[in-house]
Amino acid sequence: MAEHYLVEPSIEHLAKLHAATEPRRRRLIIRLNQAPDATLQLIRMRSDLLKLSSSHLELKEVDRDFAKLFASWFNGGFLQLERLGWSSPAAILENIIKYEAVHGMADWRDLRARLDPPDRKIYGFFHPRLGHEPLIFIEVALMAAMPTNIQDVLSDERQRLRPSEATTAVFYSISNCQYGLRGVPLGSFLIKRVVEDLRTIFPHLSKFVTLSPVPGFSDWLRGWIDDVNECVSPETRLRVSDSLALLQDPASASDNTTKREVRDLLASAVGHYLTNVKSDDGLPWDPVARFHLGNGARLEQINWPADISPKGMAKSFGVMVNYLYDLDEVERYHENLAAHRKIAVSNRVLRDIGKTSFLAGPAPDTFSEAS
Amino acid sequence: MAEHYLVEPSIEHLAKLHAATEPRRRRLIIRLNQAPDATLQLIRMRSDLLKLSSSHLELKEVDRDFAKLFASWFNGGFLQLERLGWSSPAAILENIIKYEAVHGMADWRDLRARLDPPDRKIYGFFHPRLGHEPLIFIEVALMAAMPTNIQDVLSDERQRLRPSEATTAVFYSISNCQYGLRGVPLGSFLIKRVVEDLRTIFPHLSKFVTLSPVPGFSDWLRGWIDDVNECVSPETRLRVSDSLALLQDPASASDNTTKREVRDLLASAVGHYLTNVKSDDGLPWDPVARFHLGNGARLEQINWPADISPKGMAKSFGVMVNYLYDLDEVERYHENLAAHRKIAVSNRVLRDIGKTSFLAGPAPDTFSEAS
Amino acid sequence: MAEHYLVEPSIEHLAKLHAATEPRRRRLIIRLNQAPDATLQLIRMRSDLLKLSSSHLELKEVDRDFAKLFASWFNGGFLQLERLGWSSPAAILENIIKYEAVHGMADWRDLRARLDPPDRKIYGFFHPRLGHEPLIFIEVALMAAMPTNIQDVLSDERQRLRPSEATTAVFYSISNCQYGLRGVPLGSFLIKRVVEDLRTIFPHLSKFVTLSPVPGFSDWLRGWIDDVNECVSPETRLRVSDSLALLQDPASASDNTTKREVRDLLASAVGHYLTNVKSDDGLPWDPVARFHLGNGARLEQINWPADISPKGMAKSFGVMVNYLYDLDEVERYHENLAAHRKIAVSNRVLRDIGKTSFLAGPAPDTFSEAS
Amino acid sequence: MAEHYLVEPSIEHLAKLHAATEPRRRRLIIRLNQAPDATLQLIRMRSDLLKLSSSHLELKEVDRDFAKLFASWFNGGFLQLERLGWSSPAAILENIIKYEAVHGMADWRDLRARLDPPDRKIYGFFHPRLGHEPLIFIEVALMAAMPTNIQDVLSDERQRLRPSEATTAVFYSISNCQYGLRGVPLGSFLIKRVVEDLRTIFPHLSKFVTLSPVPGFSDWLRGWIDDVNECVSPETRLRVSDSLALLQDPASASDNTTKREVRDLLASAVGHYLTNVKSDDGLPWDPVARFHLGNGARLEQINWPADISPKGMAKSFGVMVNYLYDLDEVERYHENLAAHRKIAVSNRVLRDIGKTSFLAGPAPDTFSEAS
Repeated sequence: MAEHYLVEPSIEHLAKLHAATEPRRRRLIIRLNQAPDATLQLIRMRSDLLKLSSSHLELKEVDRDFAKLFASWFNGGFLQLERLGWSSPAAILENIIKYEAVHGMADWRDLRARLDPPDRKIYGFFHPRLGHEPLIFIEVALMAAMPTNIQDVLSDERQRLRPSEATTAVFYSISNCQYGLRGVPLGSFLIKRVVEDLRTIFPHLSKFVTLSPVPGFSDWLRGWIDDVNECVSPETRLRVSDSLALLQDPASASDNTTKREVRDLLASAVGHYLTNVKSDDGLPWDPVARFHLGNGARLEQINWPADISPKGMAKSFGVMVNYLYDLDEVERYHENLAAHRKIAVSNRVLRDIGKTSFLAGPAPDTFSEAS
Repeated sequence: MAEHYLVEPSIEHLAKLHAATEPRRRRLIIRLNQAPDATLQLIRMRSDLLKLSSSHLELKEVDRDFAKLFASWFNGGFLQLERLGWSSPAAILENIIKYEAVHGMADWRDLRARLDPPDRKIYGFFHPRLGHEPLIFIEVALMAAMPTNIQDVLSDERQRLRPSEATTAVFYSISNCQYGLRGVPLGSFLIKRVVEDLRTIFPHLSKFVTLSPVPGFSDWLRGWIDDVNECVSPETRLRVSDSLALLQDPASASDNTTKREVRDLLASAVGHYLTNVKSDDGLPWDPVARFHLGNGARLEQINWPADISPKGMAKSFGVMVNYLYDLDEVERYHENLAAHRKIAVSNRVLRDIGKTSFLAGPAPDTFSEAS
Repeated sequence: MAEHYLVEPSIEHLAKLHAATEPRRRRLIIRLNQAPDATLQLIRMRSDLLKLSSSHLELKEVDRDFAKLFASWFNGGFLQLERLGWSSPAAILENIIKYEAVHGMADWRDLRARLDPPDRKIYGFFHPRLGHEPLIFIEVALMAAMPTNIQDVLSDERQRLRPSEATTAVFYSISNCQYGLRGVPLGSFLIKRVVEDLRTIFPHLSKFVTLSPVPGFSDWLRGWIDDVNECVSPETRLRVSDSLALLQDPASASDNTTKREVRDLLASAVGHYLTNVKSDDGLPWDPVARFHLGNGARLEQINWPADISPKGMAKSFGVMVNYLYDLDEVERYHENLAAHRKIAVSNRVLRDIGKTSFLAGPAPDTFSEAS
Repeated sequence: MAEHYLVEPSIEHLAKLHAATEPRRRRLIIRLNQAPDATLQLIRMRSDLLKLSSSHLELKEVDRDFAKLFASWFNGGFLQLERLGWSSPAAILENIIKYEAVHGMADWRDLRARLDPPDRKIYGFFHPRLGHEPLIFIEVALMAAMPTNIQDVLSDERQRLRPSEATTAVFYSISNCQYGLRGVPLGSFLIKRVVEDLRTIFPHLSKFVTLSPVPGFSDWLRGWIDDVNECVSPETRLRVSDSLALLQDPASASDNTTKREVRDLLASAVGHYLTNVKSDDGLPWDPVARFHLGNGARLEQINWPADISPKGMAKSFGVMVNYLYDLDEVERYHENLAAHRKIAVSNRVLRDIGKTSFLAGPAPDTFSEAS
């Protein structure tokens, strides 16, 4: 086949070459799928495979077959969006408790607080063959303004809002449930469908934002301090070190002037991290930023202190950010990142970045919009 | 890529070659599927494509992409078996009337007669994304014995049976509904699932048979008479001609002796046609025989006169046959045909074939079983 | 008991007296209701009873027990409103065809034309225990204006409207399905619930009207002509006779002047019939008028020719009327009729009544509103 | 009316008298029921009424109206039996936790242990209008034998049984959920329906028994000891006192001889209590015995120690009993109690009663059967 194609590279020979090189495993997987309850078993099979394939390189090809089929089987068209509630089957809700990966739930009471009040929603993608197993889900808070910390969202004492008074839908947690579906893009489509549904039932909602962690920030910042190759003034390096030390010692950070200084320094550093630190492919290094900016969101606001839980302090020194989904711009932002590697940020974030002469190097690779 | 593989035919290069030769159209089709109601539109798109591709050969490759994806998307694991009834949505039932291709239904009364009585069932395969559009459906009669003509199945005056008295499930009509899914194997899996369901609800059922048309028989037989190359005695040829002439003239065929002669001659010819007339691939030429025998059924009985409707007379001189699904043998029969091109027939059919020295040539390529 | 009460008419003795006089049949009926499918059987039992009780007066008491229990069991709170559609179970839709009593449906095609287009709706009341048996249903047309004849509503050639363009919901047919529920008030509550549902899904609807037959009109008018006791001028009597004769002879009624004269005469007569002809209880004699006016509707408009079907000509000389449900006034109108026996009519109808000096007697017992 | 009837006591006058004495409140309650969610509100209204009516006697009549209507509205024919499971709506399951009144559940884990394993079931009666509010529910354990203590049923360490191996369905908890439905007979019909359903899905079940508390036993026994009027020998009285004292002091009760003595004494006393202690109406005083024996069950076995929880010791000195529903006898037993005040007991229980000369008086009012 390969020879035929090289001799005469026609469309027909190309097709034959493609067919001839197709692994037989794919047909086998399709056949296996016919058995009762097979689809979930196949997802779990790939989950095992993924764990093994780092030590068994020959399994990578097998994994590719699963990945290829799963991307086709679980494309957005075949997923069912479900608005969950206190009337949903207990078996589904139990899975939500189990799979919540961002802001963990301790028990059914925690779940109910995020599910049952009229100003809180949870949406999930389900597949007809997978019963009560969610593929991915997202938690939404309906609020009167963009939140600046997670406490305002999760606290039991928060004031409940009538949905009709809400202006802002806040996506504060998104969790993938099936490790065996790694690499299948589910989240971006989920957000689009949820925004559509929210706008239908609450037409007066005008803002769709996230309240997101910055999971790679503290690792990166510590590395940066220690990295003598970073072209940065010794003075800035010292100020950052001092600030991080202060964070360990809340007492000394309590006066307002110091607090503002720490805040400005961290905001500038986070802004720099999210917009200038890239992977080899030119896209943001931070996985959450990569996801939302890749979906066409804009980096809207940097908040500190926003998550003072042990995990929040350890991963990102207490910083959280808001990404904004501006429905009129989402296509253009997406295109700007995908085609030109330009990241959309708000003027506010630009100002935050500029406050500290954090960078010796060039200006960030961003563009800003009136916001 | 092709060169790399030829130089070093590793698994990895093979995989890269396969990935590189994949038509981009497939990704496009997967993306298109995300739009609302897209799946049905894609099936219709392929239906149009199939109609055009005979005159536009360049579209064949496009059709192949659809076919490949559809075989993956509509594999048995993703199909839902539904037992239809008079409580089913009218929109589905209307489609059943519309798509019935074997023994047409004139109206809702006809439909109800095949759907509502406890000794009649209709099963369909549905896909969660396709709503009320069936993919394929099958009509079942619960009877006290294997039927020898379609009248006994369809007549309004038939005696109704309590399902508990039935011993035999008769599949008397199977219709594909989506031309755009041509080539996607649905029927074989449907029959398996229906047999399972029937055995669960009526444990005393012991026989699963079809009452099937022989759609290519009359064309073939007329061709055979005119074909001087067929190595057959002039006497047989004449007898067959005479018999066919008699069929046009019911009056002269009414006396019993003549009738039996005609019957024997036709049975022998049909037996020969179904078991010895093959496609290039060595499988039966007749499409219905190819389907059921390929599924592992046995050619059990030849019936005449069995369908005296104009269509039945025109297509098969009034002959119908029963294929039997013997659950203990179905795997073995399937294997015998797939691997050895051996067709399973009953002793009764073997005798029918032998009654007339119809063939000058060798014995049929069959094996028989006590039945 | 009765003596105790007479001697000492306390609340307690009253209660005991009531309990002691309760027919045991009621407990029996409640017990019977526990058997599977019993509720429908009980409704049918009462249906038989109603037919017998005219000739068997002793059964009237038994009927009263059923009526009492049914009024309690089938009170509005226990009824489920269902918006029917082409996806509804065929078994329900078949019942709609069967029970339609106002503008009959010939077949499933007729049904679909009233059910499936986005500008047509059918609503029914169902009871959880009665499965696919509707209790009562109503047919609704969404239109751009109040219709003046049934043809505009039912014709296949009518222009279809997008529901968003409709301003007027027209109730053009309402049918009771269970004779055994006679006397249980279902229709009034159905209309309220349907109006609520329509307003929720089509918030821009501003008018809710009927297009109703006047079933007793022709009988009444013929009787009136022959009744020498009616105090009316011989001239009017003659003109009415002439007009009715003209109706039998469409040719002579075709010129426009004559047509208008006939129209005015009939309108005046219908207006008089609906507003001045009463039962002993002081409520309208015409059953349809009694129902809608009793619900708080206003007699809004008289239309001729509006229903030229044989039935329409025979029962009401082709006249139909619109009753309007003005949601702001419905309580007041209802009260005016119930408490003061005053009928709400529009100014237009008042003018119609006045056009012909039809009546020698006093002005009608109505009140009018700007409309 | 009352005078008319006294003068001429005809059926018609009786009916008129009954109608005239009907409280108008009933019509009002029926009208109130038409508002959205009214049914549950009405049930709660009566619940409040019941609490008030002990101090406000004039409310008793109002309560009677509710009771009368509720008995008609919630008769068995209108209730839906639901087999609950881990896929049931969380809102229902939360109510099960809340309403369990016999063996309390601490949390969702407890619930799941009684709901999800294949050898455990929970059934409830629901009403279409009451959504997720159960009326009554029953918990069932499928077991290999009649259990002798509650630990065997509830323990997490119990061996799980495949339902196909079970021979015995054990009803170990039955809870009314709506105080406002007090007096409406729900339990007896629930047990019948559950037995039917269990027999359909597990045809090999042969025994249907309860494991029931004896809630009034310890109160009664203490009263008996102190009651000098009870005609009983001082010696027996002393033995009973001693035994009860032993129960407070587990150490001294640990040797086997003593234990057996205590057991025999308690069994005899319980047997006497359940079969000979009656209300004024001649039916058993103990409410649980009254319920099951009234349904036609037989007192089958007395178990000690069977429930050593604090509640179990306090209410019944640790005793539990099995009532057996023998489907062939249930009608006869019911009749024997209803008509002749005869209680069905097993020979084993008869022997238990006789073991101690507990009673000075006559033999118990029971009949026994080979069991």
